[in-house]
Amino acid sequence: MLPVEAYLAEVLAIAQPIAPVLLGLEEAEGGVLAADATARSPLPSFDNSSMDGYAVQAADVVAATAAAPVFLPVASQIPAGDTSPHVLRVGTCARIMTGAPLPAGADAVVPVEWTDGGRDRVAISQPAAPGHAIRRRGDDVAEGQLMVPAGALLGPSQIALLAAGGHREAMVRPRPQVAVIATGNELTEPGSPLVPGQIWDSNSYLLAAAVRQAGGVAQRHRVKDDPDAVVAALDELSASADLLVTSGGISMGGEHDVVKAALAGHAEVAFRKVAMQPGMPQGFGVVGRSRTPLFTLPGNPVSAFVSFQLFVQPAMAARQGRALAPPPLSPAVLTVSVRSPAQRRSYLRGVLDHAAGTVTPLPGQGSHQLGALALANALIVVPEQVTSMQAGDTADVMSLP
Amino acid sequence: MLPVEAYLAEVLAIAQPIAPVLLGLEEAEGGVLAADATARSPLPSFDNSSMDGYAVQAADVVAATAAAPVFLPVASQIPAGDTSPHVLRVGTCARIMTGAPLPAGADAVVPVEWTDGGRDRVAISQPAAPGHAIRRRGDDVAEGQLMVPAGALLGPSQIALLAAGGHREAMVRPRPQVAVIATGNELTEPGSPLVPGQIWDSNSYLLAAAVRQAGGVAQRHRVKDDPDAVVAALDELSASADLLVTSGGISMGGEHDVVKAALAGHAEVAFRKVAMQPGMPQGFGVVGRSRTPLFTLPGNPVSAFVSFQLFVQPAMAARQGRALAPPPLSPAVLTVSVRSPAQRRSYLRGVLDHAAGTVTPLPGQGSHQLGALALANALIVVPEQVTSMQAGDTADVMSLP
Repeated sequence: MLPVEAYLAEVLAIAQPIAPVLLGLEEAEGGVLAADATARSPLPSFDNSSMDGYAVQAADVVAATAAAPVFLPVASQIPAGDTSPHVLRVGTCARIMTGAPLPAGADAVVPVEWTDGGRDRVAISQPAAPGHAIRRRGDDVAEGQLMVPAGALLGPSQIALLAAGGHREAMVRPRPQVAVIATGNELTEPGSPLVPGQIWDSNSYLLAAAVRQAGGVAQRHRVKDDPDAVVAALDELSASADLLVTSGGISMGGEHDVVKAALAGHAEVAFRKVAMQPGMPQGFGVVGRSRTPLFTLPGNPVSAFVSFQLFVQPAMAARQGRALAPPPLSPAVLTVSVRSPAQRRSYLRGVLDHAAGTVTPLPGQGSHQLGALALANALIVVPEQVTSMQAGDTADVMSLP
Repeated sequence: MLPVEAYLAEVLAIAQPIAPVLLGLEEAEGGVLAADATARSPLPSFDNSSMDGYAVQAADVVAATAAAPVFLPVASQIPAGDTSPHVLRVGTCARIMTGAPLPAGADAVVPVEWTDGGRDRVAISQPAAPGHAIRRRGDDVAEGQLMVPAGALLGPSQIALLAAGGHREAMVRPRPQVAVIATGNELTEPGSPLVPGQIWDSNSYLLAAAVRQAGGVAQRHRVKDDPDAVVAALDELSASADLLVTSGGISMGGEHDVVKAALAGHAEVAFRKVAMQPGMPQGFGVVGRSRTPLFTLPGNPVSAFVSFQLFVQPAMAARQGRALAPPPLSPAVLTVSVRSPAQRRSYLRGVLDHAAGTVTPLPGQGSHQLGALALANALIVVPEQVTSMQAGDTADVMSLP
């Protein structure tokens, strides 16, 4: 059996970054920038006022006090967005709004709070030093300066900075497109009448939602236990998806394992036993002309979910050219004892109480038991060489998103 | 000036939960369940095998050893999804796949690994105790049992459990629809030719991306400094949006503050000074026939961003009937000194180094300086009564999403 880290390394060696594309800023959200983005204009692009007030020459107001205000005629009004040229004459002032361009000749802004707010003539009761309440051209970002480096994940503030710097598009490796394919004759649509032997499909919903939670775009599919149908689905979807994820059809049963049967003789997908529980049987490789990476996850929903967190999510990031740090582990005290198979790392479903520093394993640790998974906020990680831990022992815990 | 917590309390007293709607499971992702969901069938709905192997009567294999295997004829094959009734006769076995229904009369499954894998006749080299490798009907969730309680946020595992329990739809308070409206004559589309006095709009992109990052659905709008146009936009958008967010037009400049002018005499929107920097000027209330909550955020992008994190995101959760815990603060050692205005809580942009336990304030702390925001991974919180902190002091730090 392969250790978890060794299997992940195999996956990441194969999951290469996709080609970047030019997208509008909103579509580029969640993408990874593929080339350094520089400012197409200085930020700000002109000297402007940081407050509502009066643009002045500082020398004209140096003597202002509350007892003896300086009175200046208000020669003009400059709202934000005013694009006409303004020039300040000595001994006058201009009423100016936040963000409005500073008139030529002004070197300070007196905030409206230091004045009587006059319209034609203003009484100024406090001096403003040169530069007061002025944002200088380029004091945020100089023209041509690097704003967002290649490799950055584009969240709200990076998108906003690109916009402010004049980019309406960005060259990115976008949110990965992931096609999820649940396999099995037993699967039917949730809520449809059930015949004994059938179950309502949950894996396609589970994995598609996990893809979206991880920042990807998911397409949800379901295929019967027919190897030709699986091959056809993989062929078709590999042309458009950045990543393929099947569930089911990879256990030990031979001819009934549809995914294994569909990939029989396909040298570029390797089936592995990974030293973990749940999720021991795994498969990964590339399929189709585009050599699209493919995960063949086990069919038990808890196995599929844990496999997603450990392997699929890092591979999604890798397709964006982004390294995902391993999920952080934090210590918590077990409230009850747990058992774990020898030679396999267990990921037990539990409820972490941050405040108390404790974690309580849930009843129902079977890999088919979704009920416990839906109550869990954490996975309790029991190392390969440990077969039991007692109440009061400290365990490593991985928080769930 | 109002403390941050007092203002948030005002907001949350007004932001009431929206009416629940019935949505398909995929659309319901990220929604908050409005009514307890119970299992429409037991989970699993029939006894089934947890492994690939042979369904047997345990008594028939009790003597099996590697040296002296028990041989049984293989009377049938039961793949997963087989809906025909099977009955096991004493002294025979059935080849059975993971997830396939257990034949009547069988009380254990011998894993294929304990056999020679025979097709017509199988050699079994290890006994299986009664119940071995069998998942009993209802051992995950009993029929009618509560699966997901009202108030739960629907992530991948909750969606999957609803699907497994036969729900094709869910009654939820869905991801909130948030209309973002940037105001200002100075705003133009990023990349368009700039006339001095104009800037490329970044706020609409910033806030829309923040809404999506927080789990909402965003519409992006831009309106000129015309109070009638602002009133018209608020009227129209309040009919469809769950939350409205404007930026700009609320400073001290009087007639030029378009949002204040548009809402003049509108008793249900209150303008406040909140004891924080950036983000002191705030406004909140309800508008339109639907009494849609409205935030009027300041126009400086860093102010708008900090306001979003502190006030808009909790209000989005409140619209879903969900209480959002305050952002957790963690201690970190300042690498350089910082200053903060008296009577106001500062949220300084910084780079938190988790491993080192340090935080470095970024150059460029102006509320218009997006460059620093895009480099920040944390906000350094300086309390109201503190006006400076030195290198080596421990500060409270809020991680950014």
